Amino acid sequence: MCDGFGIMLKDDSYFMKLALNEANKASLKDEVPVGAIIVKDGMVLAKGHNLKESKNDPTAHAEIIAIKKACKKIKSWRLNGCKIYVTIEPCPMCAGAIIASRIEEVVYGVSDEKGGSFGTILNLSNVSGLNHKVNVKSNVLANECSMIIKSYFKNKREVKKCKKLTQAS
Amino acid sequence: MCDGFGIMLKDDSYFMKLALNEANKASLKDEVPVGAIIVKDGMVLAKGHNLKESKNDPTAHAEIIAIKKACKKIKSWRLNGCKIYVTIEPCPMCAGAIIASRIEEVVYGVSDEKGGSFGTILNLSNVSGLNHKVNVKSNVLANECSMIIKSYFKNKREVKKCKKLTQAS
Repeated sequence: MCDGFGIMLKDDSYFMKLALNEANKASLKDEVPVGAIIVKDGMVLAKGHNLKESKNDPTAHAEIIAIKKACKKIKSWRLNGCKIYVTIEPCPMCAGAIIASRIEEVVYGVSDEKGGSFGTILNLSNVSGLNHKVNVKSNVLANECSMIIKSYFKNKREVKKCKKLTQAS
Repeated sequence: MCDGFGIMLKDDSYFMKLALNEANKASLKDEVPVGAIIVKDGMVLAKGHNLKESKNDPTAHAEIIAIKKACKKIKSWRLNGCKIYVTIEPCPMCAGAIIASRIEEVVYGVSDEKGGSFGTILNLSNVSGLNHKVNVKSNVLANECSMIIKSYFKNKREVKKCKKLTQAS
């Protein structure tokens, strides 16, 4: 993360840490902790975190929120030359949105066996017929990205157990 | 569309005509004419039409707009028991959003060779691993749904040709 002169290198790990910070924000709102960052020319263009429950909106995933913000900022729906960093492998909807917005590269943390659409349950980066191809990089800070989700669900289970015990006593 | 007593039957064609009406609204705004209607228990819950260019938002497809509106109306991200009528086969993003919102059935008009994700370039209704299955019905008023799009693009090409001729003269 640092070169020999103490200057922060803005590499994939750096941006994934920012995405993890977004995921933490979601967690604090009792949302499944997923975060996303959109970067162009080494600069952060937009950030987003999952707000599905708070907003009662199934489309309010971290990636969709970040894409909408980035487009608003540059006043265009085309995010050519942009990279998106997301803590977990995108679902079909978000993978589709990444392709629809012409994002150049998606960098994700941990794979998602329940819906990951860039290599796990399907791979939208190599479906013929789509008019845009996106590069995919996986397993960037995968342990940290996995831990934050595991920890969220572990906590949820413990709270549920506590509630049951309180009700029974 | 009518029974023997002159009462309008609210069948698939009826709701697809409402979706076509939405598509027309998009066309009047110089957007690719796609419309969507969400129905629950035979009542229209929400409508949407493509606004991608007007809003500079790659996620502003008819289906996503209708889903967001329907969820806002019922104050829940779960659209269980709902049907979505859409004039063209949904793209990967919209097919993913339909699954994410737990919509029960998607009824579409014309197939889309450039991105249709319920049977054409891929089929998200039978990908194993996803936690929701959606029923799919295709080819409802397919000719009308195809014509509105063909007519839009024909008109666009003619306007372009006219502009070139005017510039050259």
